[in-house]
Amino acid sequence: MSIKTNRLLVGFLGIPGILLLIWLGGIWFTILVTVAILLASFEYYQLVKSKQIYPLTFVGLFVALVIIYFYYSEQHISGFIIYALCILFILFLLIVELFREKSNPIMNFTTTLGGILYIPLLLGSLIGIRNFDSTYSTNFTFALFISIWICDSAAYYAGKLWGKKKIYPRVSPNKTVAGSVAGVIGAFLAYLIMAKSGFIRFDLDLFQIILLTIISGVFGQIGDFVESLFKRDAQVKDSGVILLGHGGVLDRFDSLIIASPLVFIFLNLYY
Amino acid sequence: MSIKTNRLLVGFLGIPGILLLIWLGGIWFTILVTVAILLASFEYYQLVKSKQIYPLTFVGLFVALVIIYFYYSEQHISGFIIYALCILFILFLLIVELFREKSNPIMNFTTTLGGILYIPLLLGSLIGIRNFDSTYSTNFTFALFISIWICDSAAYYAGKLWGKKKIYPRVSPNKTVAGSVAGVIGAFLAYLIMAKSGFIRFDLDLFQIILLTIISGVFGQIGDFVESLFKRDAQVKDSGVILLGHGGVLDRFDSLIIASPLVFIFLNLYY
Repeated sequence: MSIKTNRLLVGFLGIPGILLLIWLGGIWFTILVTVAILLASFEYYQLVKSKQIYPLTFVGLFVALVIIYFYYSEQHISGFIIYALCILFILFLLIVELFREKSNPIMNFTTTLGGILYIPLLLGSLIGIRNFDSTYSTNFTFALFISIWICDSAAYYAGKLWGKKKIYPRVSPNKTVAGSVAGVIGAFLAYLIMAKSGFIRFDLDLFQIILLTIISGVFGQIGDFVESLFKRDAQVKDSGVILLGHGGVLDRFDSLIIASPLVFIFLNLYY
Repeated sequence: MSIKTNRLLVGFLGIPGILLLIWLGGIWFTILVTVAILLASFEYYQLVKSKQIYPLTFVGLFVALVIIYFYYSEQHISGFIIYALCILFILFLLIVELFREKSNPIMNFTTTLGGILYIPLLLGSLIGIRNFDSTYSTNFTFALFISIWICDSAAYYAGKLWGKKKIYPRVSPNKTVAGSVAGVIGAFLAYLIMAKSGFIRFDLDLFQIILLTIISGVFGQIGDFVESLFKRDAQVKDSGVILLGHGGVLDRFDSLIIASPLVFIFLNLYY
């Protein structure tokens, strides 16, 4: 449990800093997200390499920066340009693989692409949410982070107090049913209070609050499980060291990988 | 060499049929491309499975059909809808992997996505090219197929006659430098004749003819190499049977996987 505690501690220490960067917005928040994406991507590529696969890590990190730029600049690039860039990039990867003389070319190709689709494409949506907040003077970025933190903490403490039945021990041996339920309730209460107090500055009805609760409370926890599944796949245990040493901040982003693109889609649908 | 000859033979027998379907266009040509994409995708997923990876074959084939529909219908779907569909699909794959209880979840996830990006996204562009031909009364689809066939045949016969030095034996033991050069020359002459005779019905200057030659002659041959690389990766030798039994038609599409999206981009840039 010491690592878990340590993570919570580091996470807690990091919270004021993250809140400040969310408040500052613009390039400052983008830098936070960029660091998180680069660290998470690097972790992903390390996981993959532990399986004797050789993705193009630097190419993956570079494309991550390109995707971040697209989210940040909000340029309305034509669908055709995006299409052409995707096609040319796929061809580039195939041709590089042809001349790399590495084993497992199919996996090298697919894991390079997969890392880009799993991390920057999903997590970069945080920047889109923050841009939405800037444009409409709302506080959805704060609301998302806070709801995830409260979900996490409620799950952790309720799990310690009342947790008996494990929810999905094959993937995540410490998580309990009681903890997960408490996490969802925590996320719901967080959104309810933030919405009704006027903090979010957007008129949310109960249905929308429930949708956001499902995003943070259910999909956020699924994000944790997915990350655990991938670590387990690469035989990195909870006590492993690949990037847990980076601690707190990164662990805080596991849930956001799944939750933030859903909030971003929610905002685009409801505006 | 007997398999190679057999492939040429089957391919040759298939040519009138393919030409007819190109000429008919519309749903008929789309059916041809759909069959090719489904067979090639199935082959890809079989290759991957031979490496103890478990991609979601049927999901991959279903998404292939969706991509084909997008190419065929030419609906101008908003960038946001495409974005949202991609995000939801990625999340769907991650969540399915969580509950599948299969080994190698990272690879299952990435190879499912990789198959979609490698085959239908690239090869489906043939439908886009044919739509362009319908709209502007041009013959780029014919020109592309014919140039690839001539490139292939020139490479094959020149390789037999003059081929000594192998071009890239690690990946493709039978291909020679002389053959590849002859293939490029063949593609150039094919485009030159088809353009200057008015067959393509589009005013191409020499620079554009050279671009198209590079696409069919160079990138088309690269497409062959990439396919060989992937087969070799899965220890399927040239004499292997996974889908060579399907013969001819499919083999004719290896080069098109790389060449056709480039022609499609070329047409969108030059129109």
